[in-house]
Amino acid sequence: MAYQALDTQTVVDYLHALDTLPGVLVDGAPLQAREVGDGNLNQVFIVENPVDAAQTVVVKQALPYLRVAGESWPLTRERMRFETQALIKHNELAPGLAPQVFHFDDGMSLVVMENLSHLEVMRRPLVARKRFPHFADHISTFMARTLFFTSDLYLTGVEKRELLASFINPHLNKIQEDFVFTNPFMDSPENKWNPLLDAEVAAVRCNSELKLAIAEMKIGYMTNNQALIHSDLHTGSIMADAEETKVIDPEFAFIGPMGFDIGAVLENLVLNALAHYAHTPDPTLRAEYQEYLLSLVREIWNQFVAKFEDLWVHHNRGELMPARYWDYPGGAGAFAEFRRRYLADLLHDTAGFGGCKMLRRMMGIVSVWDITSIDDPAKRAIAERLAIRIGSRWVLERQQVNTIDDLIAIVREETRHP
Amino acid sequence: MAYQALDTQTVVDYLHALDTLPGVLVDGAPLQAREVGDGNLNQVFIVENPVDAAQTVVVKQALPYLRVAGESWPLTRERMRFETQALIKHNELAPGLAPQVFHFDDGMSLVVMENLSHLEVMRRPLVARKRFPHFADHISTFMARTLFFTSDLYLTGVEKRELLASFINPHLNKIQEDFVFTNPFMDSPENKWNPLLDAEVAAVRCNSELKLAIAEMKIGYMTNNQALIHSDLHTGSIMADAEETKVIDPEFAFIGPMGFDIGAVLENLVLNALAHYAHTPDPTLRAEYQEYLLSLVREIWNQFVAKFEDLWVHHNRGELMPARYWDYPGGAGAFAEFRRRYLADLLHDTAGFGGCKMLRRMMGIVSVWDITSIDDPAKRAIAERLAIRIGSRWVLERQQVNTIDDLIAIVREETRHP
Repeated sequence: MAYQALDTQTVVDYLHALDTLPGVLVDGAPLQAREVGDGNLNQVFIVENPVDAAQTVVVKQALPYLRVAGESWPLTRERMRFETQALIKHNELAPGLAPQVFHFDDGMSLVVMENLSHLEVMRRPLVARKRFPHFADHISTFMARTLFFTSDLYLTGVEKRELLASFINPHLNKIQEDFVFTNPFMDSPENKWNPLLDAEVAAVRCNSELKLAIAEMKIGYMTNNQALIHSDLHTGSIMADAEETKVIDPEFAFIGPMGFDIGAVLENLVLNALAHYAHTPDPTLRAEYQEYLLSLVREIWNQFVAKFEDLWVHHNRGELMPARYWDYPGGAGAFAEFRRRYLADLLHDTAGFGGCKMLRRMMGIVSVWDITSIDDPAKRAIAERLAIRIGSRWVLERQQVNTIDDLIAIVREETRHP
Repeated sequence: MAYQALDTQTVVDYLHALDTLPGVLVDGAPLQAREVGDGNLNQVFIVENPVDAAQTVVVKQALPYLRVAGESWPLTRERMRFETQALIKHNELAPGLAPQVFHFDDGMSLVVMENLSHLEVMRRPLVARKRFPHFADHISTFMARTLFFTSDLYLTGVEKRELLASFINPHLNKIQEDFVFTNPFMDSPENKWNPLLDAEVAAVRCNSELKLAIAEMKIGYMTNNQALIHSDLHTGSIMADAEETKVIDPEFAFIGPMGFDIGAVLENLVLNALAHYAHTPDPTLRAEYQEYLLSLVREIWNQFVAKFEDLWVHHNRGELMPARYWDYPGGAGAFAEFRRRYLADLLHDTAGFGGCKMLRRMMGIVSVWDITSIDDPAKRAIAERLAIRIGSRWVLERQQVNTIDDLIAIVREETRHP
């Protein structure tokens, strides 16, 4: 179908004209649509049958420009193809942990998917100190399975390079190249930061060791085609409640470094913990919840490692390396050491990418709601100043991080006297 | 044109049917063709006008299988597209250092190019102790320019990822994944080695530290999309005389690690040096020529670094990193340090890949003519044993190699008592 941007009326006409959405919308059912923002990039409609709440879908459509910036910022609509491909892959590899896809229309740059509005985007309930008893399990499963099965540890060389070809996503990569690794760390008109942190921000922008470290992480983002990554896996891309977890919005998906995903999850939990210096004045309540968030950081990494390594041992069919390569006296030990080194490098990457992302949220184009929702600039500055210190150390000390507790220790040291 | 394999008759008909090959073949000129092997993969014809020696071309055509293995080993013909794309890119970036392309026919998997038969493939003249006064200059220029201008140091993120998309070459990659990084180091039926080296070969195959290091280099080959590399840049892919140097046969080209190219050039010069223990019985002549080869190794690396860094400083328009990123007090020094670290890592990669390739030539499916042309197995074993020792150390000690002299020192130490 030729492209046209839909509105709340035409999106209903569009769905009615579809042959069928099996098991979701009954043919000819009455439908009502409303638009809900999905953040920065696209338009998103929730469509419901007012007489049967079970009949509901989300329709997400790319506009030929960046929604948040307007028509002056053109952006290719092909991002919806990458999002759909990634959603389908995530459903296949981590069933139940991503929204189901019902229909994709490449010409319209549009995807019809499961409505998840019974769940909350995680940032708000994390600010409200809610707990998610299955989150560490779910998100570590999601990452272990989506990353392992799309890496050279599971795929043959030919399969991996075919996957690489289908996820070349340069225009969305460009957004991250600019706004995660570059512009926040130099003068750039779109940068925003708390004026109370002028000195800290200026110090980052002329700290040569830090800038070298960020540049090295950018090399990894640009050139390390390790696995299919979500590439925007912050707590605003996760919907959850006490039972369920769903990873949404993978339009940035490409073949990149695994640590970029893991680092995003972990650093967003840390940013949330820091935000509680303002959101939770009661020191006991605050300390308890901050401890809970740090226990999530530990659990997510440790469960991720256990699951990833278990998948590797039991599904070692990939190009890196065939079982026969390790088939000699002592080879089992060498294979174990290969896994150990691979996962150690992955923790270094996780620290480095997590640190870069923490920093860019403090001085780039977009912060995180956990922190922007702190009205008082002085209180906000407490969290932001700590984030700059912790993020800087995660990047600078990444090669010395041997366990997840080393990474958490940096958080503890910097928050001893907030 | 629909695919058909040509022979010495139909290749002439094919050329006559072409509209024109401007400035090369005159319309209707009498032509004679003969087939010449190009090694392992393709069929190659030299076509000449017997009454005008200036009218001559090479026609190279991919067969739908691996020529050396026969029809039982199918191989996609698209390799000719990769070769042609790479040749065009090499001509554009390093004019005069690659054969000119006159005509490409995708359907026929065929390229018509400059006939270079006035030059020699380098292996033979290197065995004959010929000298190439411009080689270090030419090959360092070729590598500096083809690698720099196809890297993220020169290209924008979008340009680089478009280049990546056009050079996804999984089937030829697979050959190198198997035969450079895997099969030689485990039991595999096609492996060949000198029976006098049974013990050394067996030792490599169960040396866990070495196998881990080779696996780590394979990770780099699989996942580091640093620049457009030739990917088979041994001295059998270089034609030269005292004046000219031409890099041929880039069908393995893909976006991969730069050190795989540089390492290939350097290790092939070392293998040739070792072959002279048999080829040049006179110790003075031998030592002189071995010193010449090691001086080439040093010159090539040092000139490469100087040229590459000069290109970087003067054409710093790429994604890694914009000039403005370094625009602060002390930024010029940080940018210099960024270049220094990048090139230091590149030397580590060069050592690692060079070492892997040296080893695989001793115990995999293909050796090098420099060494296989030594008839006496005992004499051949001298060179081979040294190659295994040097190759192992280049891989194992790669992170400690700080200058090209460190790499050469390993050669000297191991050849002190050959």
